[in-house]
Amino acid sequence: MTGLARADAAALDAADALAPLRDRFAATDDGIYLDGNSLGRLPHATADALGGLTREWGERLVGGWEDWIELPVAVGDELGAEVLGAAPGQTLVCDSVTVNLFKLATAALDARVGGDGVILADPGDFPTDRYVLAALAARHGRELRWCTPHEAGGHEDVALACFSAVDYRSGALADLPAVTGAVQAAGGLMLWDLSHAAGAVDVRLDAAGADLAVGCTYKYLNAGPGAPAFLYVRESLCAELRSPIPGWFGAADQFAMGPEYAPEAGVARFLAGTPPIHGLTAVRSGIAVLAEAGMPAVAAKGRALTDLAAALHDAWLAPLGFTFGSPREAERRGAHVALRHPQAWPICRALIAQGVVGDFREPDILRLGFPALYTRFTDVWDGLDRVRAVVASGEHEAYAGQRSRVT
Amino acid sequence: MTGLARADAAALDAADALAPLRDRFAATDDGIYLDGNSLGRLPHATADALGGLTREWGERLVGGWEDWIELPVAVGDELGAEVLGAAPGQTLVCDSVTVNLFKLATAALDARVGGDGVILADPGDFPTDRYVLAALAARHGRELRWCTPHEAGGHEDVALACFSAVDYRSGALADLPAVTGAVQAAGGLMLWDLSHAAGAVDVRLDAAGADLAVGCTYKYLNAGPGAPAFLYVRESLCAELRSPIPGWFGAADQFAMGPEYAPEAGVARFLAGTPPIHGLTAVRSGIAVLAEAGMPAVAAKGRALTDLAAALHDAWLAPLGFTFGSPREAERRGAHVALRHPQAWPICRALIAQGVVGDFREPDILRLGFPALYTRFTDVWDGLDRVRAVVASGEHEAYAGQRSRVT
Repeated sequence: MTGLARADAAALDAADALAPLRDRFAATDDGIYLDGNSLGRLPHATADALGGLTREWGERLVGGWEDWIELPVAVGDELGAEVLGAAPGQTLVCDSVTVNLFKLATAALDARVGGDGVILADPGDFPTDRYVLAALAARHGRELRWCTPHEAGGHEDVALACFSAVDYRSGALADLPAVTGAVQAAGGLMLWDLSHAAGAVDVRLDAAGADLAVGCTYKYLNAGPGAPAFLYVRESLCAELRSPIPGWFGAADQFAMGPEYAPEAGVARFLAGTPPIHGLTAVRSGIAVLAEAGMPAVAAKGRALTDLAAALHDAWLAPLGFTFGSPREAERRGAHVALRHPQAWPICRALIAQGVVGDFREPDILRLGFPALYTRFTDVWDGLDRVRAVVASGEHEAYAGQRSRVT
Repeated sequence: MTGLARADAAALDAADALAPLRDRFAATDDGIYLDGNSLGRLPHATADALGGLTREWGERLVGGWEDWIELPVAVGDELGAEVLGAAPGQTLVCDSVTVNLFKLATAALDARVGGDGVILADPGDFPTDRYVLAALAARHGRELRWCTPHEAGGHEDVALACFSAVDYRSGALADLPAVTGAVQAAGGLMLWDLSHAAGAVDVRLDAAGADLAVGCTYKYLNAGPGAPAFLYVRESLCAELRSPIPGWFGAADQFAMGPEYAPEAGVARFLAGTPPIHGLTAVRSGIAVLAEAGMPAVAAKGRALTDLAAALHDAWLAPLGFTFGSPREAERRGAHVALRHPQAWPICRALIAQGVVGDFREPDILRLGFPALYTRFTDVWDGLDRVRAVVASGEHEAYAGQRSRVT
């Protein structure tokens, strides 16, 4: 870290090899957007691709399916290769994180039906993960044992563990190979939720030895609101696992429409219904921008941006009552940080009113995200400078009223 | 029926109050499209709406969720009011037909966990329905008893029945009130698959007394490839049923993100993950065109179009070896017909090569669909005239080779 003047941040931007990619995104001159970890920006190429797909639908009509039908597998392979570190034939783009988590966790528990192994899950994990896992534990008669990824090692007879690779609040990045190894040593299958990791850090799923993964595409993959999620099944595991939702897109000979369901040979057996082609088009286009940068460079810039945020926090915000709610070691962080303050909610609203967009997470977290493809070091500097100004002046106190539903 | 000359069909077009709506759709001068029952045409307004949403994403970013978050319920209510005959608070647009069928069928079986009632399903139903129901029967230890909707009355102790309102091959329209009543009299919940019915016939779900329904939006609702599906839960049943996939969008206080899942009070409890906003935008736009016509007029035109197809079949195609594979009574049909012929596959391919697009369904069905919003009586006449010419000349014999995957 050099100095903390704005000129120092500007110097980092000037030296940033990824800086030109910011121009690939729409409307970037409109405020300081530090919530791309919630909804990523729109790539210009994606606007074009979506418009092109709409025209294609109008012109090719049902004939378009000749090409569209391959997209869940083809875009999955692209995601695996460019973002997840996964060899082909293991990744699909389909459904939502919630549905994919349900499918994979159920398949894992079904495959271990003879045992009575426990399910490990993080009490601080994203709600949808906790809710689905709790429901499955009850349905399958399994003990659900709460622990952090860091505590995964101390258990015997594990059926399944599900953790987020990057924590949705703190941004803490788990040690994927170590946690995976600990779970597998206890007999369990390791299911990673990569929602806050994919496109932010270099997850290298195959190298980590992961069994299963899910994640979303509307954050660091910039595929738009409600774009389809992804799932990953280690290749050697595909034949053993069955989807609990055996839809026609996962059937071996889809258009034979025979009396009995037989699953596809590989990961495609985890497809269910008709895949969303607009969403898949946006995911493919989002992957392409990340691929151009390369995940090592993207992850390195994420670490540098969060490093700057940590330094500015210490210099400016700690004296104002903030605590840094993310890991201190850059290599243990994703691309967002948690700034904790008792008044985080009104502070967040006051910032949004000034065009600095972050979000609030219970109970006291101002969460700021720095996607490397379009976030400048000066955005971090300017954003935290506004946080300082708002809190120092007490401007946020006017926003201490009722919370709206969407944050 | 008047005469069978092309001028007679043209006269029907001239008298058709819905004829002007054809201009709302893109690229309608490009061949004779009789496969809108597989993938509906693109409304011009939908192209505009999708482009507008993409721009909105780029500009509002995460702030857009303030409005988007209501879409699954709001568009569901619009669908219920304009297309399904369902009062507000019972319909959602979300996920795929396969996933929605899984959610509702599981919820129904869970709610009847004490009994040992059977599941009724149609052995000729669409594959995804049969596959999901067979898997659920095995998981829940229930007998799966195959019967047609017509045969639903002769059973005791039924837990759940699932039938298609309009058969995907024959186009037969079930008697929804009668079948529903028979299933309920045997203690069962009635789940309708409306995929080939919604937007084709006036299903009037509330009036039929239906318990549950699912259906798709990319056929007669013209929402594009892989647009999200819908589900319906009778209002008085919502409190009793729980989704097996308790995602964060179905939670009562979504952004509290508390330790325990508590479901939304109403049908929204059947939401799972983040909903697809491009898809929802297209569904809303598709509903608007149907709403302008009104379902009674749409259904009446569907009957008239299939009546013409039946008459032309009898006059032209029966002598060439065809049999009419759909009900003879117009009020027992959806908006597509099945023309059966031993050479249906090569006939379908030869027609497509000439710009007349229908599809093939096993084992011997040339399936032709006539969505009322954009199908002209002269399209039916011209389409069946080409069928006659192809088969009479033997042109189709050159297409008797290998079947492609997508039909």
